[in-house]
Amino acid sequence: MNYKSLGKILGKIMILEAILMLAPLLVSIIYGEPFSHQLAFIVPILALGIVGFLLQIPKPKRKSLYQKEGFALVATVWIVMTLFGAIPFVISGDIPNYIDACFEIMSGFTTTGASVITDITTISRSILFWRSFSHWIGGMGILVFVLIFIPESDDGSAMHLLRAESPGPQVGKIVSKMKMTARILYLIYLGMTVLEVIILMLDSPIVGYENDQFFFSLLATFGCAGTGGFGFLPGSMELFNPFSQYVMAIFLILYGVNFSLYYLILIGKVTSVLKSEEFRSYFIILLTSIGLVFISLLTKFESIGYTVEEAFRHSLFQVASIMTTTGFSTTDFNVWPMLAVTVLMVLMFFGAMAGSTAGGIKLSRIVIAVKGAYVNIRKLINPRYVPKTKFEGKPLEEKTRNDVFAFITMYLFILLVVILLLSFDPINGQAVTVVSDAGEYTVTHGFFSNFSASVACLSNIGPGFEAVGPYASYALYNNFSKLVLTFTMLIGRLEILPVLVLFSYRTWKRT
Amino acid sequence: MNYKSLGKILGKIMILEAILMLAPLLVSIIYGEPFSHQLAFIVPILALGIVGFLLQIPKPKRKSLYQKEGFALVATVWIVMTLFGAIPFVISGDIPNYIDACFEIMSGFTTTGASVITDITTISRSILFWRSFSHWIGGMGILVFVLIFIPESDDGSAMHLLRAESPGPQVGKIVSKMKMTARILYLIYLGMTVLEVIILMLDSPIVGYENDQFFFSLLATFGCAGTGGFGFLPGSMELFNPFSQYVMAIFLILYGVNFSLYYLILIGKVTSVLKSEEFRSYFIILLTSIGLVFISLLTKFESIGYTVEEAFRHSLFQVASIMTTTGFSTTDFNVWPMLAVTVLMVLMFFGAMAGSTAGGIKLSRIVIAVKGAYVNIRKLINPRYVPKTKFEGKPLEEKTRNDVFAFITMYLFILLVVILLLSFDPINGQAVTVVSDAGEYTVTHGFFSNFSASVACLSNIGPGFEAVGPYASYALYNNFSKLVLTFTMLIGRLEILPVLVLFSYRTWKRT
Repeated sequence: MNYKSLGKILGKIMILEAILMLAPLLVSIIYGEPFSHQLAFIVPILALGIVGFLLQIPKPKRKSLYQKEGFALVATVWIVMTLFGAIPFVISGDIPNYIDACFEIMSGFTTTGASVITDITTISRSILFWRSFSHWIGGMGILVFVLIFIPESDDGSAMHLLRAESPGPQVGKIVSKMKMTARILYLIYLGMTVLEVIILMLDSPIVGYENDQFFFSLLATFGCAGTGGFGFLPGSMELFNPFSQYVMAIFLILYGVNFSLYYLILIGKVTSVLKSEEFRSYFIILLTSIGLVFISLLTKFESIGYTVEEAFRHSLFQVASIMTTTGFSTTDFNVWPMLAVTVLMVLMFFGAMAGSTAGGIKLSRIVIAVKGAYVNIRKLINPRYVPKTKFEGKPLEEKTRNDVFAFITMYLFILLVVILLLSFDPINGQAVTVVSDAGEYTVTHGFFSNFSASVACLSNIGPGFEAVGPYASYALYNNFSKLVLTFTMLIGRLEILPVLVLFSYRTWKRT
Repeated sequence: MNYKSLGKILGKIMILEAILMLAPLLVSIIYGEPFSHQLAFIVPILALGIVGFLLQIPKPKRKSLYQKEGFALVATVWIVMTLFGAIPFVISGDIPNYIDACFEIMSGFTTTGASVITDITTISRSILFWRSFSHWIGGMGILVFVLIFIPESDDGSAMHLLRAESPGPQVGKIVSKMKMTARILYLIYLGMTVLEVIILMLDSPIVGYENDQFFFSLLATFGCAGTGGFGFLPGSMELFNPFSQYVMAIFLILYGVNFSLYYLILIGKVTSVLKSEEFRSYFIILLTSIGLVFISLLTKFESIGYTVEEAFRHSLFQVASIMTTTGFSTTDFNVWPMLAVTVLMVLMFFGAMAGSTAGGIKLSRIVIAVKGAYVNIRKLINPRYVPKTKFEGKPLEEKTRNDVFAFITMYLFILLVVILLLSFDPINGQAVTVVSDAGEYTVTHGFFSNFSASVACLSNIGPGFEAVGPYASYALYNNFSKLVLTFTMLIGRLEILPVLVLFSYRTWKRT
């Protein structure tokens, strides 16, 4: 292992995290919070800065990185970011338990949005900002961000990093230089973020919080852009007015699109965007799901008490929120009829497009798997069949199909293991009281709670169903379960393999 | 398509089904049931006989079968067997609705054991016999049975049939002649069946049914041998005494073993059996699961009210029953603590060994997938890595690994589709009352009901959890859901591809 090179990059990222933490520190000062809250950020900023600086000192003999080093580095970086990023929660006293804090910030960076906070109104502004900001940082990828600043070598080191961190079965550069690609993607990301804040501010978005419109619009935008979904007001996005809920739903759908397609639009290749199979399947599944959920809500109309407009808005928002693996909610979808619940549950597996900020299996993999299954059937019908199947205009190679099958298999296996590990928790079988826009009700923490919690963390969504629904939290799980779910979020965000590489002894063996 | 050859084989199987139906007809006569019950079997026997005979008349030009024809034939045979096998239920009046009857007999032939009967005490002896007998017929495979009687050609036609019907990723002959292989397997099956009935009869197995010990021992054995699991007394196997529950648990475990291994034992190759990786993993998973369930029951001791012996017996029996995808129960495992429930739920995915009468993904696939994942990680760590991984002493080829990944992916996709289709049913959200050895309680038909029902049918287990638990039934689903689940059982039993081949238009295209 090229420890010195790895240390150098890790150190750079730690310094970057220190710089990013200046933002919540500033928020803390602006809002005149007590000094303990500023200290909550000053301590980790200093720690990150010093360790990060020390890691710059050794001179590496070899500059390039092997693929395994790239994978191991990415996983290490995310863990280190989490360990330091959790400190402000503990020092500020907003989340006193360090494991809870690690869960919370891992949930932030991985853009999951699962929270252990039971009463969001007790949380200070600076911590609210840090949580939501972590979505924005994690959404596009931490290392991708760093690639913008470090000099590019020609040996593919940068590509190894990008491949390990970027979601989806294939990673392509949109322009010849990796660094340029990263810059363009981040500029698009930034542009969309600014645009969303401006549009949200057109109308006073939040009822009852007139003095904090900009602050909360910014946090909402962070959550949308990273497809994270941390709530920061009681009832997630419930207090936002209908106009801003529509705006957010549309932006969520836009953030679920592969960012490379925006680059194609910018350079005028709109037709090639419309020809993208993943893009088409995204909108077909999206519209079908909205339709099914809407019909489902209409059939159980009276019992839920929505108007037709509300039923449509909640269908649109919730499908967009779950399919993009964001997890924001505008209403308690836990009490929805089974068809709506099941559609959302299936979408939790799928996720949105590869190359977006969303999690989950990704639609490109779903499309490839379906085509792969078709190839297998054709081969059975005619053993001499030579597949001419294409994906996105290029021949769908056997290796790609098989990698996708392997990925989905591992996804299922990890899910089963996580569900099994959660079943040891003493919370199982206990009654949990939920207070939501549907009223106060009691649910038992049962199999569906653990199942949906596992899928929600592995697909980086956030809320699940039953006892971990949109108006509940992950607070009642014990420390062991929280650690399991923290790792599950990381495994999901890095798409399984980098984390497994990190824990393989062969990675660390001297060769 | 070679329709005439296909028709000839289909016809032979219909005649076979007619012959097999003589057994329940005999039961009906022995127990002196009203003539309507004898008519219930005479009508389909005549129909099957006549159609089967007519199908023998055309002379096929080509005798051999292509692979696609083999696959399509196997799926067709199972559907035709079901359509005729359902008739006795309707004529006898025991299950008046034809769709219910098709569900019931498909559940029988596929050795699922899911039932639509709400009060088993209302069912006549001949129908009880036919249900359980269908497990025994379906367990080893219908076409495998036919292979014993039809002349063997050298062109691999028989192999195509066996491959389509036999469970597991690889199909091997244990001796050079296919027909001989089938005969040996059936002899072992028959021998074990006779042995189990004899051992059960050593003690009066069923409390309160002293006059029917042989009849019920035989039905229990049919259910065990085929790993089917239709109950025939109130409370599934609850009324059997502890000795016979232990006997059945052990036989269940034995029926979950690949039958080829018994042949190896018979010819004295015991060491190669002990070296089998699938065999080892079977016992490791089995013992671990029994341990986990036992511990789980002990920790919630008082609330359930078992003695230590009962807790152990129920753990052993239930793990054996679920892992072998049988579905018999000795107690209401629906009310067990979450760890025990989750272990059983995970086992529902796995199933037992390939080449046994069990359903599910099969352990050989699980082992191959885990090894395949390991190969993928090694390749990431070192791109030049050439896998030398072995399975059962032979090199694990890339094609085998990829076929397994593809299978598990399709398994997951089908599961999601079935769960989605079940979510349309009006039963969702309704309260269902269950009466069991744990008392009377009410459960809501929720997501876990549909989820476990889908897995239980796709893995050919039978009972699920919540509203489709061991003391409930599938009766409350509507006709559409029942049809969906009927096909799900067939897809599970034939391991997905033959059913998909049947419904592919290319199969039927003239070439």
